[in-house]
Amino acid sequence: MEWIEDGDLDFLKKRKVEAKEAAQQSVQLIIEKVKAEGDQAIRAFTKKFDGIELTDLRVSEKEVEEAAARVPQEVRRAISQAAANIRAFHEKQMPESWTETVEDGVLLGQKVTPLDSVGIYVPGGTACYPSSVLMGAIPALVAGVGRVVLISPPQKNGLIADGVLAAAREIGITEIYQAGGAQAIAALAYGTETIRPVDKIVGPGNLYVMLAKKQVFGDVAIDSLAGPSEIAVLADDSAHPSWVAADLLSQAEHDKMSMPVLITPSRSLAEEVDKEVERQLETLPRRDIAEPSIETVGKIVLVKDLKEAAEAVNKIAPEHLELAVADTESVLPLIRHAGAIFLGMYSSEPVGDYFAGPNHIIPTNGSARYASPLGVDSFVKRSSLIRYTDEALQKNGSAIAAFARYEGLEGHARAVEKRLKGAAVHD
Amino acid sequence: MEWIEDGDLDFLKKRKVEAKEAAQQSVQLIIEKVKAEGDQAIRAFTKKFDGIELTDLRVSEKEVEEAAARVPQEVRRAISQAAANIRAFHEKQMPESWTETVEDGVLLGQKVTPLDSVGIYVPGGTACYPSSVLMGAIPALVAGVGRVVLISPPQKNGLIADGVLAAAREIGITEIYQAGGAQAIAALAYGTETIRPVDKIVGPGNLYVMLAKKQVFGDVAIDSLAGPSEIAVLADDSAHPSWVAADLLSQAEHDKMSMPVLITPSRSLAEEVDKEVERQLETLPRRDIAEPSIETVGKIVLVKDLKEAAEAVNKIAPEHLELAVADTESVLPLIRHAGAIFLGMYSSEPVGDYFAGPNHIIPTNGSARYASPLGVDSFVKRSSLIRYTDEALQKNGSAIAAFARYEGLEGHARAVEKRLKGAAVHD
Repeated sequence: MEWIEDGDLDFLKKRKVEAKEAAQQSVQLIIEKVKAEGDQAIRAFTKKFDGIELTDLRVSEKEVEEAAARVPQEVRRAISQAAANIRAFHEKQMPESWTETVEDGVLLGQKVTPLDSVGIYVPGGTACYPSSVLMGAIPALVAGVGRVVLISPPQKNGLIADGVLAAAREIGITEIYQAGGAQAIAALAYGTETIRPVDKIVGPGNLYVMLAKKQVFGDVAIDSLAGPSEIAVLADDSAHPSWVAADLLSQAEHDKMSMPVLITPSRSLAEEVDKEVERQLETLPRRDIAEPSIETVGKIVLVKDLKEAAEAVNKIAPEHLELAVADTESVLPLIRHAGAIFLGMYSSEPVGDYFAGPNHIIPTNGSARYASPLGVDSFVKRSSLIRYTDEALQKNGSAIAAFARYEGLEGHARAVEKRLKGAAVHD
Repeated sequence: MEWIEDGDLDFLKKRKVEAKEAAQQSVQLIIEKVKAEGDQAIRAFTKKFDGIELTDLRVSEKEVEEAAARVPQEVRRAISQAAANIRAFHEKQMPESWTETVEDGVLLGQKVTPLDSVGIYVPGGTACYPSSVLMGAIPALVAGVGRVVLISPPQKNGLIADGVLAAAREIGITEIYQAGGAQAIAALAYGTETIRPVDKIVGPGNLYVMLAKKQVFGDVAIDSLAGPSEIAVLADDSAHPSWVAADLLSQAEHDKMSMPVLITPSRSLAEEVDKEVERQLETLPRRDIAEPSIETVGKIVLVKDLKEAAEAVNKIAPEHLELAVADTESVLPLIRHAGAIFLGMYSSEPVGDYFAGPNHIIPTNGSARYASPLGVDSFVKRSSLIRYTDEALQKNGSAIAAFARYEGLEGHARAVEKRLKGAAVHD
C-alpha cells in the first residue's frame, strides 16, 4: 500500500470516476429506446448485454420457490436471521406524524406518508447479492410502501440468481423482473407494457446503472449515486494487524477501484498491517480484484495523533469507518463524516454488510459529507400541516399582507386581507 | 379556467417543462467556465446576463446594514416575526442521535451530524424574496450547519435586493455573494478564488438554476428540482368562492406556468369560483402573469364526492393543498401526496408562504409523491453505529461467514472468521 506521511490527502481528488461522454450518450439512447419501445427494448438489450433471450420479464412464483430451494439451508438460515436484524433496526427509524397547537388555536404539524411504489435494483450478472435485496427492500417494507418491486439482471442460465430470489421470498417480495443496467432503470422510471413505473429507484449498480439513475432523477426519485466501496480503519497500537489487514482486504475484493485506507499514529502497526495485507492477499480468491485496489487506490496515512486521524477521516468521509482503537468513546465525538461507524475490534465491517441490522447501502465517494445510509426515511415523506384560526389571522394578517406586498405579490396580500374583518379589500 | 368533468387528469402529463438541449449545453458551458476561470467567469457572466459590473463578489457588512435600514419598519417587523415562527417549527424537526444495546451487549444506533456547509440560492433580478432567505437558511441554522452561505443575483442597481439582505441580517447570515443563474450554482459547487465550495445547495430558481443543480448533483447535494408553483384547492359548498378564487390567483401570479386547480363536487361553487377568478383577475397588478396561468394551466376538476376529490389530489400530488371543506378531519386521512396541507377556511396559502412556520420550499411537479418540504433533515445526515462484542461474534460469526462466502466474497468471510475462536482461518 502507498504510504502518506505528510498529511497530503490529495489522492481524494482522484476518487471520483468521471463518466465518459460516450457512456452518457449510450445510456441516454437506451433510456429513449425503452421509453419508445417498452418490453421489446428490454428484451433486445437483455439479449445484447446479458446474452439472454428472455421469455417472461416477470419471474413466476414457481421459479422463486424452486430457486429458493436450491440455496443451501445454512445460507437460507443466515438470510433469515439477517432479515430479522435488519427489520428490527429499521423499525426504530420510523418517523411519526405530529401536530401541535400553538397560540390562538393555530395547529401546525407534519404528516408522514410512505411512498406508493419503489423499485429495488439488485446487481447481478456474474454476482449474486441476496444481502442487497434485504438492505434495499426491508426499509421500504418497514416504511409501509405499498408496492416494492425487485429488478435484477438474469444470469447466464437465464434466471436471476437463486440467492437473490431466496432473499426476496424471505421478505415477501413477489413482483420481480429480470432486467439489468440502464434498461432496468428506464423501465422502473417510465414503465413498459409489463412493468408499471415506480416513484423511487434505489440500489447500487455499475456505471451504466448510476448514469441512468442520474438521468431519470427528477422524473422519479433515486437514492445516492453509488461509487466503489470504501473503508477507513482508524487504528492505534491496540489493534490486531492481521484483523485490520483482513478488513481492508474485505473492501478491496469488491472492486479494483475500491478504496481501503489505514489511518494510524503508529508506525509499527502500519508496517505490520502493510505486511499482513501482502501476506493475506496471496491466498485471496479475488486477488485479481483486491490487488489493484490495494496497490493503486489503497493508502496508509500516518498521522501525529488520534485527533489528526479523526480529521483525516472527516476529509475522506468514508462509506465505512472502523475505530480499531482502545478508547473508541474519545474518538467517536471527533468523527463528523462517515456512513457507518464500526466500534472496537469485534466490529469487523462484514458484520455490518450482512448481519447487524444497519443498512449496507451507504454513501460513497465522499458523499457521507451530506448523505445518509439508506433507511426508512428514504421511503417516506413529510407533508406540512397548517390550520390557521380566525383569531390568529386577524392578529397577524396585516403583517403577512405587508410582507407579501413588499415582495411584489399583491395577489398573496389580497388572499389574506379578504379574510380580515374591516380591512380594505382591493378587488 | 378549463373545466374537467370526466375525471381525465391527462393534463398532468404536460406539467413537466422539458429543458431544451440548447439550455442544457449552455448551462454545461457556464459550469465548465466557472470551474476553469473562477471569479473572472462569475464577473463575465454577471455582466452578460445581469448587466452588472461587479466590484466585489462578496457583500460587505456595511452594505447589509445600509440595505436593511432601507426596508420599511413594518416589513422588518414581519420578517422578524416570521423568522421566529419558522425557527420554532423547524426546531421540532431536529432528529436525535440514539443508541441501544441489543442481545449479547451489541450496541446499534445512529449518530446525527449537521452538514459542514450549505449554500442558499435566492432568486433575484427583478424580484425580491426575503421569505426565501428565511425558508432556505433557518432549517440549516437550526440543524447546526457551521457555514451557511447566501448567493443571489444583483439587481439593476448593482446590489442584492434590500429585503433579501435585511432577512439575512435578521437571522445572522454574513457570508453573502452576488451572483445568479448557473454561474452561482457552479461557484457554490466547485468554488472560486473568493467563494469556497459548499456541501449542499438549496433554494428555488429559474430553468438555468434548475439545470445547473441537476448537473452538479453528485458532486454536491441539492434539494429537489423546483418547477412552477402549484395549488390545489379541494372545496365543498362551505367554501367562500371569493376566498378560494383569491387563493388560486395567489399561486397564478407566481409564473405563467403555475398551476391553480380547484377540485370540488359542487358545480355551483365551481361556477362561482370561476366567475370570481375572472373578476379578481381584472385588478390584479400581476395580471399579465396570472392570466396565462389561469387560462392555459388552471383547471376546475368536478368530482362525484370528496373521496374522488382526494383521489384526484393524490394523482396531482400538489405543492400546496387547501382543504376548504366543512369537515377537514374526514378528508385529511385520504390525502397521501401533497407538500403542504392547509386546513380550513382561514388557512390561506400565503399564511404558509410567509408566516406560519412550516417551510415554503416544497416539492413541485408531482414530486410530493416522493419528496418532502425543505426541513432540518435536509441539513443533517445519519451515520450508523455498530459495536459488536466478542460474545455476539462467536455466536453469529459462522452465519455471517456462510452468507459472505455464498456471495463469493471470501475476504469478507475471512475477516470475520479470523476473530472466531478455534475456527479454521484460511490465510
